[in-house]
Amino acid sequence: MELTLRHIAESVGGAIVGDDQVSIKGINSLPLAEKGEMSFLADPRLKDQIRVTKASAVIVREFSGLYQGPQLIVSDPYLAYARVAAMFAPPIPRFPGISEKAIIGKGTHIGKDVSIYPFVWVGRESVIGNGVILFPGVYVGDRATVGDGSVIYPSVTIMSDCIIGKQVIIHAGTVIGSDGFGYARDGDISVKIPQTGIVQIEDDVEIGANNAIDRAAFGKTVIRKGVKTDNLVQIGHNVVIGENTIIVAQVGIAGSTTIGKCVVIGGQVGLTDHIAIGDRVMIGSKSGVAKSIPADEVVSGIPTMPHRLWLRTRGHIRRLPEYSDRLKELENRVKELEEQLRKESRG
Amino acid sequence: MELTLRHIAESVGGAIVGDDQVSIKGINSLPLAEKGEMSFLADPRLKDQIRVTKASAVIVREFSGLYQGPQLIVSDPYLAYARVAAMFAPPIPRFPGISEKAIIGKGTHIGKDVSIYPFVWVGRESVIGNGVILFPGVYVGDRATVGDGSVIYPSVTIMSDCIIGKQVIIHAGTVIGSDGFGYARDGDISVKIPQTGIVQIEDDVEIGANNAIDRAAFGKTVIRKGVKTDNLVQIGHNVVIGENTIIVAQVGIAGSTTIGKCVVIGGQVGLTDHIAIGDRVMIGSKSGVAKSIPADEVVSGIPTMPHRLWLRTRGHIRRLPEYSDRLKELENRVKELEEQLRKESRG
Amino acid sequence: MELTLRHIAESVGGAIVGDDQVSIKGINSLPLAEKGEMSFLADPRLKDQIRVTKASAVIVREFSGLYQGPQLIVSDPYLAYARVAAMFAPPIPRFPGISEKAIIGKGTHIGKDVSIYPFVWVGRESVIGNGVILFPGVYVGDRATVGDGSVIYPSVTIMSDCIIGKQVIIHAGTVIGSDGFGYARDGDISVKIPQTGIVQIEDDVEIGANNAIDRAAFGKTVIRKGVKTDNLVQIGHNVVIGENTIIVAQVGIAGSTTIGKCVVIGGQVGLTDHIAIGDRVMIGSKSGVAKSIPADEVVSGIPTMPHRLWLRTRGHIRRLPEYSDRLKELENRVKELEEQLRKESRG
Repeated sequence: MELTLRHIAESVGGAIVGDDQVSIKGINSLPLAEKGEMSFLADPRLKDQIRVTKASAVIVREFSGLYQGPQLIVSDPYLAYARVAAMFAPPIPRFPGISEKAIIGKGTHIGKDVSIYPFVWVGRESVIGNGVILFPGVYVGDRATVGDGSVIYPSVTIMSDCIIGKQVIIHAGTVIGSDGFGYARDGDISVKIPQTGIVQIEDDVEIGANNAIDRAAFGKTVIRKGVKTDNLVQIGHNVVIGENTIIVAQVGIAGSTTIGKCVVIGGQVGLTDHIAIGDRVMIGSKSGVAKSIPADEVVSGIPTMPHRLWLRTRGHIRRLPEYSDRLKELENRVKELEEQLRKESRG
Repeated sequence: MELTLRHIAESVGGAIVGDDQVSIKGINSLPLAEKGEMSFLADPRLKDQIRVTKASAVIVREFSGLYQGPQLIVSDPYLAYARVAAMFAPPIPRFPGISEKAIIGKGTHIGKDVSIYPFVWVGRESVIGNGVILFPGVYVGDRATVGDGSVIYPSVTIMSDCIIGKQVIIHAGTVIGSDGFGYARDGDISVKIPQTGIVQIEDDVEIGANNAIDRAAFGKTVIRKGVKTDNLVQIGHNVVIGENTIIVAQVGIAGSTTIGKCVVIGGQVGLTDHIAIGDRVMIGSKSGVAKSIPADEVVSGIPTMPHRLWLRTRGHIRRLPEYSDRLKELENRVKELEEQLRKESRG
Repeated sequence: MELTLRHIAESVGGAIVGDDQVSIKGINSLPLAEKGEMSFLADPRLKDQIRVTKASAVIVREFSGLYQGPQLIVSDPYLAYARVAAMFAPPIPRFPGISEKAIIGKGTHIGKDVSIYPFVWVGRESVIGNGVILFPGVYVGDRATVGDGSVIYPSVTIMSDCIIGKQVIIHAGTVIGSDGFGYARDGDISVKIPQTGIVQIEDDVEIGANNAIDRAAFGKTVIRKGVKTDNLVQIGHNVVIGENTIIVAQVGIAGSTTIGKCVVIGGQVGLTDHIAIGDRVMIGSKSGVAKSIPADEVVSGIPTMPHRLWLRTRGHIRRLPEYSDRLKELENRVKELEEQLRKESRG
């Protein structure tokens, strides 16, 4: 596919300086772009790369004298890059219709234009929306819903009764609706508590590879509209994740914790159960969150503290041996002063 | 299904105050319960919820004047809830018999009343016990055993020779019997050490989603009776987990470490290799365990320390910048005192 | 299979003391070895085990007077054990050829002597090398390559265009080539950035179970020759891992970070994005790596510090409550000294 720079600018906005009829066949990073591709300068620290790129056009925030070709000037080059890349992205490979080697249970409604690959199992009384793609090895239980336009990659498991919204992407190996981790103790024995709730994933969510999102004990585990999770994320039963929140890889969120909107949780963070994280909170990677956090805070550390305090604190940790020595030395000096004064007052 | 409160009380114990003939069709939390369902008050802090619940009966530890309907009084409402919920839990959906689209190897023995879904592979000379459910995408290798009544959810892999006990539940995506991580170094090259042992999982174990439990280098990796693991747990080769131990999500246990009975390991904890954790130890979430822990200790932190000490310690970490300033100030003041005394003794 | 000790010595090197015609049918640990098996003493701390082993021969570094049978004396008993174990390791079970229940896309080239089990999907225009084993539930996308002799265990997903080298082992449940975690922000909305790059895994790599290795935004995520990863490892887009590097379980490496050769990364370590780790660096388990590390350093901690400093530092953390008390006490004593001096100088 080739598009003129003018056509691209009409889609993503911005002003063109230079030849608006240059033909573009893709977008790539400044170092990797070849003739015929366009590129973008989003990070000002990389501005020297624009001097040597082979790209046939570049997206910039401000006109750059370092580049000779046509420039598309936009307020947010990174966002414009995302939109241009989407124009050129290869389509997801589709199986034509429903494979004879897939199994669809009784009473299940399948929409139009679906791709259901071989080795897919869909249970009874489920709903598979229009345009849905179910890759090989996908399991969808009974009475489950997968909304229009959603893409479910290989070997994803969606257990019974779970609800997946529209335009949702779930990457390979992820498990939606496994039992929450709930037991009552009878002496030493853990008595399983049936997990009778569901998982509801709203529209426009993207879930990474090999996540595990548990069904609720009662009611719902909820992932709201626009949430994005990275790989290997654990979400416990009855957790609620607010709209447009971003969860980086290997985060674990324990049961019944609620996360606000537009929260950003860094990699390998752990959050304890039954706490509430306010809207727009940012949690630094590897933090251990033991209590609720009000909206708009930026925290880090184990346990968490304001991120600025953590930045000052962490440098001190490695100086603890030195501080210990200085404390000891001070104690000796103070003891000497005390003895000296005692002698003098006696003398 | 509907049961009278009397019938329920006969199963789970306890004394009824009020109408013992009320008909119950399920159990739910106090806020979610509807007419016809019963509920329970396990956490005294939630006692106000009992005032407004729509539940047709409640399980309580002590009679509550805040609730008008019949009450089932038991010593442990949470345990009674678990047992009642099990009475009402929907059955696991069963495939009738062995699917023609499953593949069973030569010499494999299949018990009675099994459900072997399509797209299941079972190798040669294996044993699948009575009542076992193997969901789509399950792989069971050669000479493996899955004991009576066990439920293996979609896309679980059980490698050859591994032994799964009775009434075991393994959630989707989990891998049992992958090779342990063992190499000998030949200069820079890592020479693979064949992992010739197995994994043995005893009865009544529940393993969460997307776990990885490695086979032993020699002998066995052992998960003893009643152990429960949450999601995304890593268990290295030759690890032994004692009876009724509970392992929360994203824990990693390195090779040859042994864990006692009734241990509780919090989320995201890491345990180094070749250590021993005593019975009934409790390890706080996100801890890093670098050495063995005697029985009955409660520990937290990186590195681990007694949990009570950690509770006092962690508040000090954020005060390190302040302590550093105070230390510096003290040094200045002591220096001044020393100089003053020196002058005075000279003067 | 039985081999004489002489035959084994000719393969792995070393000098035999005692009967070189003894027949050996396997290798096992000193406590587990039975008559007819050989064993090895690699860890000098276990030297008492050699006195009571039933092994019919042992591999040692130095002749041991504690053992009566034949001894194979080598410079590195652990490496010799690895090589002997490989001689006796049972072969990986092979499906004869390409199952009729596997699906191979148009234009895909399949090598000789492959084992393609049932329920395998291979897309179009891909290349499956000679001797490759694809276990049940494996998905290989379009235009992907799996090199000669590689073994892909059950339910592994290899997305389109990814390149797997020769003699690579990928354990069950792992996902290669899922989308990198890349979004541009448009107000609160995360706009997906198409991930158009690939994953390239070079020869002799072994990837553990339930890993997630993301495809590049542009270009390649690269795992170089001889790398070994344990289970549940996360590797972000555009990461490059140098030759022979070892990555223990549950490590997370964020996007565009480059790791040198022969690096060892302990369990549960997290590395931030866009940093560079030098050759032969060793990173202690549970570390949080926030910036680049020069070659040959050994680091630990959150944040990382030289490992020796960490060993001294970590003991101080638990003493913070005590240090706080001592600081407070010193402040009181210094204040008293100051007042005393003030009085005396007035007096």
